[in-house]
Amino acid sequence: MHKNDLLLRAAAGQDVERVPVWLMRQAGRILPEYRAVREKAKGFIQLATTPELAAEVTIQPVDLLGVDAAIIFSDILVIPEAMGLPYVMEEKKGPHFPETVKTMADVDKLRVADPEEHLHYVASALRIVKSELNGRVPLIGFAGAPWTIFAYMIEGGGSKTFSKAKKMLYTNPELSHKLLQKITESTIAYLNMQVRSGADLVQIFDSWAGILSPAQYSTFSLPYIKQICEGVTSVPKTVFAKGAFFALEEMQNLPCQVIGLDWNMRIQESRKSLGPHKTLQGNLDPCVLYSDPATIKKETEAMLKEFGKRGTIANLGHGVYPDIDPEHVKVFINTVKEYRFDQ
Amino acid sequence: MHKNDLLLRAAAGQDVERVPVWLMRQAGRILPEYRAVREKAKGFIQLATTPELAAEVTIQPVDLLGVDAAIIFSDILVIPEAMGLPYVMEEKKGPHFPETVKTMADVDKLRVADPEEHLHYVASALRIVKSELNGRVPLIGFAGAPWTIFAYMIEGGGSKTFSKAKKMLYTNPELSHKLLQKITESTIAYLNMQVRSGADLVQIFDSWAGILSPAQYSTFSLPYIKQICEGVTSVPKTVFAKGAFFALEEMQNLPCQVIGLDWNMRIQESRKSLGPHKTLQGNLDPCVLYSDPATIKKETEAMLKEFGKRGTIANLGHGVYPDIDPEHVKVFINTVKEYRFDQ
Repeated sequence: MHKNDLLLRAAAGQDVERVPVWLMRQAGRILPEYRAVREKAKGFIQLATTPELAAEVTIQPVDLLGVDAAIIFSDILVIPEAMGLPYVMEEKKGPHFPETVKTMADVDKLRVADPEEHLHYVASALRIVKSELNGRVPLIGFAGAPWTIFAYMIEGGGSKTFSKAKKMLYTNPELSHKLLQKITESTIAYLNMQVRSGADLVQIFDSWAGILSPAQYSTFSLPYIKQICEGVTSVPKTVFAKGAFFALEEMQNLPCQVIGLDWNMRIQESRKSLGPHKTLQGNLDPCVLYSDPATIKKETEAMLKEFGKRGTIANLGHGVYPDIDPEHVKVFINTVKEYRFDQ
Repeated sequence: MHKNDLLLRAAAGQDVERVPVWLMRQAGRILPEYRAVREKAKGFIQLATTPELAAEVTIQPVDLLGVDAAIIFSDILVIPEAMGLPYVMEEKKGPHFPETVKTMADVDKLRVADPEEHLHYVASALRIVKSELNGRVPLIGFAGAPWTIFAYMIEGGGSKTFSKAKKMLYTNPELSHKLLQKITESTIAYLNMQVRSGADLVQIFDSWAGILSPAQYSTFSLPYIKQICEGVTSVPKTVFAKGAFFALEEMQNLPCQVIGLDWNMRIQESRKSLGPHKTLQGNLDPCVLYSDPATIKKETEAMLKEFGKRGTIANLGHGVYPDIDPEHVKVFINTVKEYRFDQ
């Protein structure tokens, strides 16, 4: 089915000739070719909602960087929008929600997203990518984890502490669970639409996992991620919970195939916590890509050696930063492709 | 010497009648009485550099909240200022350095701080506090860890990724080590002046520890913290490295008495990593203080039970947030004071 199915075999824990490699945020951000398309689209949201353009920037890193997977160009915040809470993307400031969720009435007003009605443009983009990739590499779909989406919907934007969102968990757990459940059902429907439209694997991003205490994470995040993993059955799932080092042992029991590691997490300890049945993805410090090619090669090889060959998907420990030189990204990718584990 | 020396006995791992309690950022931020003084001072930096006013807000939480220690009201960024790199504190935006360190020539231009010349106002404030406390509770001095200070001096202010500072570590380790060493020597002189002026214990805040990979933390942060611990010999030392869960085992070997934990760190696992000879300080999620008194009490008791009585200093896992109700802070403090470990 795929000419290059390394990602899917690695996710399944099967033997691979070499470790597959892709980068979080590879679609968008670093390529001049991406910036040209974004210019044409007149903004991030316009680009994400125009299927032909979203498809174009999704395929760029496959052609230009040689990664082993495409990931659909989109945004995790399309879910609140589809639930009835729109946002704007402010240049250099990030996402902003003019209205936030404050009361149970606000939660009741929101709908469970109908992705076919409100997120059809993502399905269209996936179908275009699928057709244009023509089986060259697998296609990854994604969504935010319910806690991370919740955090934006309560806070109204990014935050150093997300103290409004956390305050809601402590002061109104009933509202919190009700909203998290609505987000979860929306996300399951959304990811299943992505699978029907061509996604071969889906990744759940819990970007603000590290803001929660271990107890809150167990109560307000993991159960909803578990529901999503159970609700999206036909493809492998990756869960990337940034900062949730304290939850790795619990994540062993998530019905997903792959766990993403950030660059703070020690690889061998994480593998021990997660047990033998999970594939690990990650976890080079994105800032390594600022250094010279020899250092990038050395650091990437050290990481691969620690991961081992089987059950590994090479990636960064976070999305690639916008000012990274694409040539340095290629050094990372090529180092993974050329690495031999008998070294 | 002190009427209440619980903090010092707990730091030394000695028997205590009850666990001592104080809060990071207790001086400043939450008390209306603090805001009145700040108003009078016309700004944060003016307040920090006026000994009588800094002393006044240092003592307020001892009088008004009943904490078991005072911590001098100051700022970690007085060190770069004393080295020749001034900053401004922008309302709601935080610190900003008009000039940053970019080249080796920039590092060479900086001096090792002479605290007696440039930071005498901190010494004066400590002496006033010491005299006015009159032995009621111990007085804590503090400084930033060299990596955290370095991060601000390169980046020029706060940042989500501190990617400029990390880029410097990867691309110019020689410059990085030279600057870190200058900061370290400045900090040792500064903390020793604080001790001479009355500090009974000093705390080193590595606020941006969690931005680094384990390997970078071992190379660029811990060795400098170790130098400071070795250079300040006459009082107990606390090291609080926020986000450095991955370094706890290494921190076992730091010549300090107390390790601060943030709210992500599991207490019992941390105690295991740190071994039997360190006192632990922390680590309630500051957002617990948004909840109702019964929940604050329940969460605080659960924390104390996990810590155990000996070798424990109760605190939050981060500085208290500005919009926390002081009455809720009192619930936390009183719960610690009333807790009996035979429960």
